[in-house]
Amino acid sequence: MSLPTNRRSVLAGAGALTGSLIAGGRALGQEPRKLGYAIVGLGGYANIIMPRFAECRHSRLTALVSGDPAKARRIAAEYGVPERNIYDYANFDRIRDNPDVDIVYVILPVALHHEYTLRAAAAGKHVLCEKPMAMNAGEAAEMIAACDAANVKLMIGYRSWFESHNREAMRMTAAGELGPLRLVTSQHGFNIGDPNQWRLDPALSGGGSMMDIGIYSLQSARYLSGEEPVEVAAFEQTDRSDPRFRAVEDTLLFQLRFPSGAVADGVSSYSSHHGRSRAVGAAGWLDMEPATGYGGHRMRVHLEGRTREHEPPILPLNQFSGQLDHLSQCVLTGAEPIVPGEEGLRDMRIIDGMYQAARERRPVAI
Amino acid sequence: MSLPTNRRSVLAGAGALTGSLIAGGRALGQEPRKLGYAIVGLGGYANIIMPRFAECRHSRLTALVSGDPAKARRIAAEYGVPERNIYDYANFDRIRDNPDVDIVYVILPVALHHEYTLRAAAAGKHVLCEKPMAMNAGEAAEMIAACDAANVKLMIGYRSWFESHNREAMRMTAAGELGPLRLVTSQHGFNIGDPNQWRLDPALSGGGSMMDIGIYSLQSARYLSGEEPVEVAAFEQTDRSDPRFRAVEDTLLFQLRFPSGAVADGVSSYSSHHGRSRAVGAAGWLDMEPATGYGGHRMRVHLEGRTREHEPPILPLNQFSGQLDHLSQCVLTGAEPIVPGEEGLRDMRIIDGMYQAARERRPVAI
Repeated sequence: MSLPTNRRSVLAGAGALTGSLIAGGRALGQEPRKLGYAIVGLGGYANIIMPRFAECRHSRLTALVSGDPAKARRIAAEYGVPERNIYDYANFDRIRDNPDVDIVYVILPVALHHEYTLRAAAAGKHVLCEKPMAMNAGEAAEMIAACDAANVKLMIGYRSWFESHNREAMRMTAAGELGPLRLVTSQHGFNIGDPNQWRLDPALSGGGSMMDIGIYSLQSARYLSGEEPVEVAAFEQTDRSDPRFRAVEDTLLFQLRFPSGAVADGVSSYSSHHGRSRAVGAAGWLDMEPATGYGGHRMRVHLEGRTREHEPPILPLNQFSGQLDHLSQCVLTGAEPIVPGEEGLRDMRIIDGMYQAARERRPVAI
Repeated sequence: MSLPTNRRSVLAGAGALTGSLIAGGRALGQEPRKLGYAIVGLGGYANIIMPRFAECRHSRLTALVSGDPAKARRIAAEYGVPERNIYDYANFDRIRDNPDVDIVYVILPVALHHEYTLRAAAAGKHVLCEKPMAMNAGEAAEMIAACDAANVKLMIGYRSWFESHNREAMRMTAAGELGPLRLVTSQHGFNIGDPNQWRLDPALSGGGSMMDIGIYSLQSARYLSGEEPVEVAAFEQTDRSDPRFRAVEDTLLFQLRFPSGAVADGVSSYSSHHGRSRAVGAAGWLDMEPATGYGGHRMRVHLEGRTREHEPPILPLNQFSGQLDHLSQCVLTGAEPIVPGEEGLRDMRIIDGMYQAARERRPVAI
């Protein structure tokens, strides 16, 4: 079976990941060097990430950046971060002089990703940036260029690439175990609360559900197909009288066409709960639900007319720690991350296309 | 909670169905009268239907119509149909003079539905016609008018309306048990074989997967939402170099917009296997897989963060026998079938819209 070039790179990435994680798990006779992370933005997701450094072999939490000094001091005490390594948004650039910090992890509202990635790169620090990478593809390209120019690595926080079930699904589809792939369906959503949160302010978020939870549907479509779409269509449903959706979209149904003839059918929603993915080939399908949550993943495989639960090989690290250590190892070895800035840029181009397709009510070439 | 008018009619239909089936199951002190069915077309699906008369309380198989005399005689012997009640397509109209036949069940290629429904009505017989009802909405409207003029009933073979899990799903969504409905997803498909079969000849089938297996996705979207779409979009993927798909579509991804703001996302495919439906409300979801097959249905419900298997109340009759007896009871009592010709016409109008949307690559108002 001939695989498209990008599929080969996914496979290569999978091999590198497994290899690096196994190496990371080996007793090497000495403590491996742990790279220092500065977390920028101490919101809800940072609170998910920070406890996971405890399981890392190559990464440790060494600095915090926050506009709230009291909160920063409290968290610093909790995680053993020295007070001298607490920054605010005004003095952030001084991080350049701090040898405790190798990598800056940007967990800010989307509108700030571009600025803080550029400032981190200018400070000579490697960057892990949350998804979506930027407000649009133009910003994303600038972030890549800035990190290239500063000779620092840029990785996007696509944690599902480090999660056992999703990696197994990538392997199975890439190996052709479902036969030639026909369709990927992926649905992600939740019922969003407080109408005044930054996610519902387009000046901070860049958009609605598709710039947040919907990225899991798009990512799943891409990494389960192993292809890049050439065309996108989108069908939006937003109740503008709902105070949550005065300025951003609620639900987007999107369709992608891949060069092989496979298609993807995705859902992104801020008003209903979803979290599942299915890849369907001519010979059968695999299904994940929950597909991309923080835990509790389940996978089923349907082949030869039978559906069975499928337990993937479990990676040595959970998805959060695995993501942190992967970038550390890339920095240590000079390897390229499996989810570099370019991976984020591809999503941004497609999301830009989705918004155009929804607005113009016609399919858009990517 | 205010329900749209069409939702009320679904509920009314559900009540009538349950009532009639329970009445049918009662010991009434005497054998109920069994209406006689003529099956027109002795292909694969007729072979699924014919054994199910054994379980009917109001229906019996009394006549066969076929172009293959040897096959008709063999089947007649198997089911105890007298040889005098075997017809061919030339002498079919003589069925008018046969008091053994009350209802004609048309199980022919789609292109023949219109002709045989009109001939059956002209012969004064009630009609059960397989889905899709006709080649297009225009034909469907003529069939309704002809049956009205002849004062005979016309019902479409939507068997899932008589199946326990789907009825329970209709009840739950109509009762608002999932909260306000946001989204129905439904995916139906199979990997079609022989490129020379009538289903792949548009002159006989009227189209590809959407005029066959895809109707289950459309029907599910409509009866789980209880609404009629006001807009449809469609995204087609067909490999015209595949000998099966020289003349008809393979895969259609469709989107429907309902007046309430709910949307539906459907898949129809002739190249991959699917058979599931999910209704998602603000409070949770229900899922059926297999959703609309001949048997083996399973249902899960997700509410308050928990997913559980859900066993619906089982109707007294299987979906096939229930469908046959429902029309018989409507004839006996004068009631209107819950899936009359008008229900088929609605599907045909939407499918016509889907084909237009796919061709013109833009959403179409219904």
